[in-house]
Amino acid sequence: MTLPERQLANAIRALAMDAVQAANSGHPGMPMGMADVATVLYSDYLKFDPTDPKWADRDRFVLSAGHGSMLAYATLHLSGYARPTIDDIRNFRQLHSPCAGHPENFELEGVETTTGPLGQGLATSVGMAIAERHLNAIYGDELVDHRTWVIAGDGCLMEGINHEAIGLAGHLQLGRLIVLWDDNKITIDGSTDLSTSEDVKARYAATGWHVESCDGHDPADIRRAIDAALADNRPSLIACRTIIGFGAPNKQGTSATHGSPLGGDEVAAARAELDWPHEPFVVPSDVASAWAAFGEKGKKLHAEWSGRLANHEKKKEFEDRVSGAVAPGDAFKAYLDGLVADPPKVATRKASENALTALTADIAALVGGSADLTGSNNTKTSSTKPLTKDDYSGRYVYYGIREFGMAAAMNGMALHGGVVPYGGTFLVFADYCRAAIRLSALQKQRVVYVMTHDSIGLGEDGPTHQPIEHLQSLRAMPNLLVMRPADAVETAECWAIALAQKERPSLLALTRQNLPPVRHDVTENLCAKGAYRLRAANASRRVVLVATGSEVSLALAVADQLEAAGQGADVVSMVSTELFDEQDAGYRADILPDDALLVSIEAGTTFGWERYTGRDGMRFGIDSFGASAPIEDLFKHFGLTADAIAPQILARLGS
Amino acid sequence: MTLPERQLANAIRALAMDAVQAANSGHPGMPMGMADVATVLYSDYLKFDPTDPKWADRDRFVLSAGHGSMLAYATLHLSGYARPTIDDIRNFRQLHSPCAGHPENFELEGVETTTGPLGQGLATSVGMAIAERHLNAIYGDELVDHRTWVIAGDGCLMEGINHEAIGLAGHLQLGRLIVLWDDNKITIDGSTDLSTSEDVKARYAATGWHVESCDGHDPADIRRAIDAALADNRPSLIACRTIIGFGAPNKQGTSATHGSPLGGDEVAAARAELDWPHEPFVVPSDVASAWAAFGEKGKKLHAEWSGRLANHEKKKEFEDRVSGAVAPGDAFKAYLDGLVADPPKVATRKASENALTALTADIAALVGGSADLTGSNNTKTSSTKPLTKDDYSGRYVYYGIREFGMAAAMNGMALHGGVVPYGGTFLVFADYCRAAIRLSALQKQRVVYVMTHDSIGLGEDGPTHQPIEHLQSLRAMPNLLVMRPADAVETAECWAIALAQKERPSLLALTRQNLPPVRHDVTENLCAKGAYRLRAANASRRVVLVATGSEVSLALAVADQLEAAGQGADVVSMVSTELFDEQDAGYRADILPDDALLVSIEAGTTFGWERYTGRDGMRFGIDSFGASAPIEDLFKHFGLTADAIAPQILARLGS
Repeated sequence: MTLPERQLANAIRALAMDAVQAANSGHPGMPMGMADVATVLYSDYLKFDPTDPKWADRDRFVLSAGHGSMLAYATLHLSGYARPTIDDIRNFRQLHSPCAGHPENFELEGVETTTGPLGQGLATSVGMAIAERHLNAIYGDELVDHRTWVIAGDGCLMEGINHEAIGLAGHLQLGRLIVLWDDNKITIDGSTDLSTSEDVKARYAATGWHVESCDGHDPADIRRAIDAALADNRPSLIACRTIIGFGAPNKQGTSATHGSPLGGDEVAAARAELDWPHEPFVVPSDVASAWAAFGEKGKKLHAEWSGRLANHEKKKEFEDRVSGAVAPGDAFKAYLDGLVADPPKVATRKASENALTALTADIAALVGGSADLTGSNNTKTSSTKPLTKDDYSGRYVYYGIREFGMAAAMNGMALHGGVVPYGGTFLVFADYCRAAIRLSALQKQRVVYVMTHDSIGLGEDGPTHQPIEHLQSLRAMPNLLVMRPADAVETAECWAIALAQKERPSLLALTRQNLPPVRHDVTENLCAKGAYRLRAANASRRVVLVATGSEVSLALAVADQLEAAGQGADVVSMVSTELFDEQDAGYRADILPDDALLVSIEAGTTFGWERYTGRDGMRFGIDSFGASAPIEDLFKHFGLTADAIAPQILARLGS
Repeated sequence: MTLPERQLANAIRALAMDAVQAANSGHPGMPMGMADVATVLYSDYLKFDPTDPKWADRDRFVLSAGHGSMLAYATLHLSGYARPTIDDIRNFRQLHSPCAGHPENFELEGVETTTGPLGQGLATSVGMAIAERHLNAIYGDELVDHRTWVIAGDGCLMEGINHEAIGLAGHLQLGRLIVLWDDNKITIDGSTDLSTSEDVKARYAATGWHVESCDGHDPADIRRAIDAALADNRPSLIACRTIIGFGAPNKQGTSATHGSPLGGDEVAAARAELDWPHEPFVVPSDVASAWAAFGEKGKKLHAEWSGRLANHEKKKEFEDRVSGAVAPGDAFKAYLDGLVADPPKVATRKASENALTALTADIAALVGGSADLTGSNNTKTSSTKPLTKDDYSGRYVYYGIREFGMAAAMNGMALHGGVVPYGGTFLVFADYCRAAIRLSALQKQRVVYVMTHDSIGLGEDGPTHQPIEHLQSLRAMPNLLVMRPADAVETAECWAIALAQKERPSLLALTRQNLPPVRHDVTENLCAKGAYRLRAANASRRVVLVATGSEVSLALAVADQLEAAGQGADVVSMVSTELFDEQDAGYRADILPDDALLVSIEAGTTFGWERYTGRDGMRFGIDSFGASAPIEDLFKHFGLTADAIAPQILARLGS
């Protein structure tokens, strides 16, 4: 290389400060601070082919400090990806530009994961690194042999999820995960001294990480540190000592460069300071050529890899795995048939285990786990031996008491591809991982959340463990498929639906308590319509009872009492409000007719059920926190029994 | 003491295993494992007066591993608290027993905080310790001089919030916080080896903690470790090496004792092993007497303290502080008057800062903070200098990038009493601290969440930062008061409402962008009714537009267009759905009449708005994720402009 390396890094700096200035919003400080590190990474280490951003054996690069998105856009542009173009960068943060305020994987192929919610990029990368080692254990170095690189800031390290993520990575000894920490000692509020006194490196070392430090503005020192990381079999943290906003002579090293444009004067001063006399958005040809050359090595490696794949005995299997195509097979079919032959009275968490036993036998890509509730979530099957540091071929991750870390890791596994992750915790602890569930939904990833103990039906553990608002609060989230099955057949159907969702996560809400079978045929996946008429009124229909999960059998009992009083009542199982809302108006009107009293029954908040009952319907649920008691006492206490509900409906009907 | 200390601990063990056995559910392992530690704590260290559980200068004891609730119930009972009685303990986990599955502070006075959601007890204790040092700085050792003790398990230490909590405690050098870690090497899934390889003590040391170890079954060694902790000015972690289920000869040391009754045979075997021949729920008189004596020392200390208080120059002020009575004063009144005289066009986050400037001048108990977004949340005022390890008298906490830790700490501050905490982050990051917000609500604590950047109105930061489902998902939570004011007057009113809530937390959703004034009178706090008619229809009323926050001014513009077309339209500002739902039926029917088309406008999900519009009304909002662009482009893109909305309403009206 004949150009000074600093000039290659300055291309990142200039694009960052110019794009932020043009948008009049954004974060120049991080890209300018980490430009030298990124340049070293792209020039000598990162394995990528800009002509095929989805090459299965590419290194994954995660910009966990997502506010520094211009670093990602600049490096993708400079290193030869088709997008972003320089015009995309000119339109940074404008409507329809792929260069969004934070990097969005659905906007740009070179962006491996959506980042911005702090800490999650790094936690997601742990899942990528797990998936890589898992597939490596199955397909070998010939096909799977790549690294996961992360740039993280102080925010990513201070967030609680960092502890969960690095604990998991250290425990699983994910040596191919390397985190480049932008150690600039500045947060939004000012110096890190305002809020932390932590010895970060000692903390990482305590959790089984290899730790290095380097001068983040000295390419040779950066290379030394990375080489040491490559030589170690533990995950590595490299503390890159940097100056935020490096090159902006009057503002660098201060939080003023973090989240605001530098201003015209300071941009001009930085141009002088950096010896970068070029117009905004202009990259001189020598710099552009040097950057473009970085991608050549990867193209060659990609070609060699393609050669190995072409001759590999597992070529077809590998390609299928990477494609993400999964389908229930013979074991699942046999299981469904058995449900008809011998309908079980089981908890839906147990029904989920039974379905999973078949599905994990059918589908090798399924990788399960639980946040230390394996026996409660019923997530482990005989097909899923533990995935450990000594055997990455396992298909069951003991995530530990790390709900958020689990969810983020599952996002990473799904994003990596080749595996379909599912994992369990109690529904109430959806609150602990909600921010990662949101990123599953935003990123359109097929992650399956197995959330058990889904109501007061869990009994004695009491209000801290009893979901009340959770179902509705999760249904409110865009692009998340919430399903609450009523028995073993519906649970199996929900699993089939979840695995068929290539562009959204699913969340299964499952009971602790046993439920009677309500469905006795499996000829059609009725849950796929979201809601369906489980039983039609016998007498002339006056009421439609809409229930979910454990309250479907309750609704049947209510209907019995109404019918006994001469009032016809349909019973509708509304497994998924989202799927129901997607049906055509005719179907929806048939299920929820205007001429009947519409009644919802769900052992959770009634908030939001007006969507289906209207203001004039009736809603039975729980609008307070729960209580600690045996299950039967609780359902009675909260008025969720047929004897409590039916008379109220009859009173409303005036009969 | 003439009795072997082990027998005093065995009283805890016996009550725990018997209560769990009687309830046929619960967690015997932790109380049996930590019984010796708890006995030492109560006998020699914990400052408490069982006859006055709310004595302001008592030590706080937090059972962070809340599943081991029988340890708390046993020690409270044995040490002389009025409740729980032995009958309460016999009714462990039954409806209406104060001995709930997990300790609930609203059930028993001796329970300092509701625990069970792992990690939060410890994180809450950090807030208690902050409040203690803060009040000590103001009122001196004579009135405030106590410690916060925590028993935590592996789950509490693995959860991400642990990192945030101990980072904050280490940074603030909360030396009066002592954590007794039940180091039993067992989690629900089995050995901790399954999921963690962490050197916990090294991690704590890395964050500024003093660390000790002891044999958790050797009282002398426990005392040695605690004495060392008392002598150190850093917060202390004591790793108490214990055997889970100690005393159950066939099950101890295994996860089998964690969350299930031991079974009749094993309970009998444990009785023999522990030399505890007494019937279930029977505590022999010598053991009972020894335990009862533990409280005597505290009674004496309490009496001495009462004497000091009686003669203290700040007696009245201190009692007022502890009572929790706060009221806006002259500065706030002057601020309100100024709003009428000169209505500002400001963002509601700025209006919140202005209100806080007055309120923090009026009310010394207000202690603010932000999770590293001070300048964005506008939470700091001239009255609130930083609270630091060198000056605990400060009233502003730089919480760092620790949303969850901040929220849990605020719970602890509120529970401690003497301070009224408020803290800020972006509304979208409510997801990061949602589990703690839930505990604010469940525990009925006056915590004020200042959540800014409350819609796509934040602009370019894009979908990861734009709340969509958050308002509704938070409104779905029981006992949380969500308020979204429309201008500076409403913001001030919401602050007054929030401070008046002695039994629930409040969450203020505030804009980044400027909003025009819509209210010009302050004679009555109209927000207190939740929703009110901001402008009545001019033409004959056909439509009621219901809007919140930044969309209220939009609704006014829509109304203008409707009126111009001859269609009368009321505009309702629905600041708080919870408060509105609490109004009588007549008021609600007057605001939302049946004879008008009901239309909601809110820049978030439409999910749930059917409660106010009915199925036949119209809902304008955003049912997908947001996008990165300037604010004006976004509102236009998502159809939230008067020009987009008014024609749809007119079309529906058939005019």
